[in-house]
Amino acid sequence: MPSISNKGKKMPESPIRKLVPYAEAAKKRGVKVYHLNIGQPDIKTPEVALNAIRNYHEKVVEYSHSAGNISYREKLTKYYKSKNININSDEIIVTAGASEAILFAIQSIMDPGDEIIIPEPFYANYNGFAINSGVTVIPIKSDIEGSFALPPISEFENAVNSKTKAIMVCNPNNPTGYLYSEKELITLRDIALKHDLYLIADEVYREFVYDGNTHHSVMNLKGLEQHSILIDSVSKRYSACGFRIGCMISKNKEVMATAMKFAQARLSPPSFGQVASEAALETPKEYFDEVLDEYLDRRNIVVKMINQIPGAFCPNPKGAFYVVARLPIDDSDRFCQWLLEDFHYEKQTVMFAPASGFYSTKGSGKNEVRISYVLNVKDLTASMKVLEEALKVYPGKTN
Amino acid sequence: MPSISNKGKKMPESPIRKLVPYAEAAKKRGVKVYHLNIGQPDIKTPEVALNAIRNYHEKVVEYSHSAGNISYREKLTKYYKSKNININSDEIIVTAGASEAILFAIQSIMDPGDEIIIPEPFYANYNGFAINSGVTVIPIKSDIEGSFALPPISEFENAVNSKTKAIMVCNPNNPTGYLYSEKELITLRDIALKHDLYLIADEVYREFVYDGNTHHSVMNLKGLEQHSILIDSVSKRYSACGFRIGCMISKNKEVMATAMKFAQARLSPPSFGQVASEAALETPKEYFDEVLDEYLDRRNIVVKMINQIPGAFCPNPKGAFYVVARLPIDDSDRFCQWLLEDFHYEKQTVMFAPASGFYSTKGSGKNEVRISYVLNVKDLTASMKVLEEALKVYPGKTN
Repeated sequence: MPSISNKGKKMPESPIRKLVPYAEAAKKRGVKVYHLNIGQPDIKTPEVALNAIRNYHEKVVEYSHSAGNISYREKLTKYYKSKNININSDEIIVTAGASEAILFAIQSIMDPGDEIIIPEPFYANYNGFAINSGVTVIPIKSDIEGSFALPPISEFENAVNSKTKAIMVCNPNNPTGYLYSEKELITLRDIALKHDLYLIADEVYREFVYDGNTHHSVMNLKGLEQHSILIDSVSKRYSACGFRIGCMISKNKEVMATAMKFAQARLSPPSFGQVASEAALETPKEYFDEVLDEYLDRRNIVVKMINQIPGAFCPNPKGAFYVVARLPIDDSDRFCQWLLEDFHYEKQTVMFAPASGFYSTKGSGKNEVRISYVLNVKDLTASMKVLEEALKVYPGKTN
Repeated sequence: MPSISNKGKKMPESPIRKLVPYAEAAKKRGVKVYHLNIGQPDIKTPEVALNAIRNYHEKVVEYSHSAGNISYREKLTKYYKSKNININSDEIIVTAGASEAILFAIQSIMDPGDEIIIPEPFYANYNGFAINSGVTVIPIKSDIEGSFALPPISEFENAVNSKTKAIMVCNPNNPTGYLYSEKELITLRDIALKHDLYLIADEVYREFVYDGNTHHSVMNLKGLEQHSILIDSVSKRYSACGFRIGCMISKNKEVMATAMKFAQARLSPPSFGQVASEAALETPKEYFDEVLDEYLDRRNIVVKMINQIPGAFCPNPKGAFYVVARLPIDDSDRFCQWLLEDFHYEKQTVMFAPASGFYSTKGSGKNEVRISYVLNVKDLTASMKVLEEALKVYPGKTN
């Protein structure tokens, strides 16, 4: 029997999905499982987007332009302008989600053996994309005590070497919810310029910023125009994960021409998703106001209730819809599995993502979990109660 | 300014799209351009599929299962059963078109430096996927005189070495239209088993088989169950290129488990496309009968008219909707550009794909073009007339 690839052997299992069989077994036992493990929001997709699909009138569903429909890209430039990001339609390649955009970005600028610096914890699939591309992730640890702020500049300086090609950040951050300040982004710019690196910013949670804070885009860093690559997606913005529509944006023409070759090889991004995404740009402001109010309530509940649990700690993040919480536990993988396999409180339990999967430094995140606050306030309150009760009896409790 | 990747530099430009600016300029001059350069059919997408989209009723467009909706995969097994291909739903991973399926297949079984043998001419994007994966394509030349039949077994034996991991065929073939016989597939099976190689078959044109012939699937080669990987797509079957729905199929559990890790990293295939593809499985038989009759008429016109042109030759392929024709020309890239830039016949011209882009052996295909017969009989007839007239005056004519 022929062997599989070493690359395939190295590809990580999803840290979220490996617990799925335990959740399914719990449900079979009649236990209600609150899913706080994935970034699948329960928010309704805007009607204006769904109506565009319901009114789809083409007779032949053709390939689109490899960079995406020009009508969609032109409207996207207006959306970005409303966010003070000035780009042209030929500086956008529409992709199958942010996932494909990240792959195009990495593969356009990096070769096997090259290194990319990413503050950790980071979105687990960055690891998969890096391994897929033969690229090494150099993690720089951000700290829960400091709310996962950008690590000191000295850490970046120490990590840069001749193989370093890029720094990547997710802003606001998945999994920590951290929102980078303008000052932190300027720090990153200065490192990128000093060492001639690309700065890739995954800004798919741009709309989810709380407490009157402002999101600062990598595209607005003066002097970094040839170095910056923006990754985006409609998945979270419009609760439209299934559209599979994202994009890669850069003002560097050579980068975009190279990414276009990868884009042409796969022909085109999904046509229906593009139609829905174009229509979604007409989503009324009230939709976002409501969604933001809802997420704010949810964040407040989660942060408050975790910090009331003895031995637990959770920063109060300014963006996205995740928190990473520190719990008084021996091993988050074991704890998350135990929650599903051995515990219930009034026939309910909760599913988290063990934070270990969001670190590439082995042994990190062992007493942390990522919580996606993608359920309503009532369910979240019940989930936090389950967590509190679970920590009273978990055999691996540490304090 | 930071450099782009060497991989990016090596990625080929699409052999089809590089002529697009010349076609656009021709249209601006008032010349009608017949597009026989791409595999974008003019056939209507089945109503049953479009109706499923128009009746889309979910409130939240969620991620699907990373392997695709289970309801779709289960119905797909019935479709394959109707084609005498027996598989289970867990032997299918639904992908963003055949493109993603090919990437998953290659990356699950091959590492950078490994070799894959492909009879040439072959679908140009195989080159891009191989370069993307750091894999080397070893071409084995099939011959227009022999209608592009499978090259002799000795050619394969000569090409196999310790780096060889797989053989890939497209059946029926893009760009040649060639339909492999059962005997040829058995030959491939024997080579694969003898040298412990994977055999990947891209069967996206399965439905397009003419003259009473039968398509033989790689999945039905006895003894090859652990070595065979099937690549499929709804793009051509239902004239649904924009759905971006394909799949990868194998009975080798280790291969599928590995491919699933790549699938999970990119989260899920497009949701709308899956809904439409599931509904498309209800397409009535009459749809295919009509489409096949139509393509048969088209093939007959193209083959007949080309063979009437002095110095031109075209085999009579049994499948897909392409032919590779040999023309009395010096250089097909130059000729195809000249057709758009310098020629028109009664204010009409035609766009072909230079066959050079479908060979990886440099200098091959210089006097061949690929013709996609994706226009109606009237337009095809007009196109062939344009070709005939063009060859009377083309400055680089060779005989």
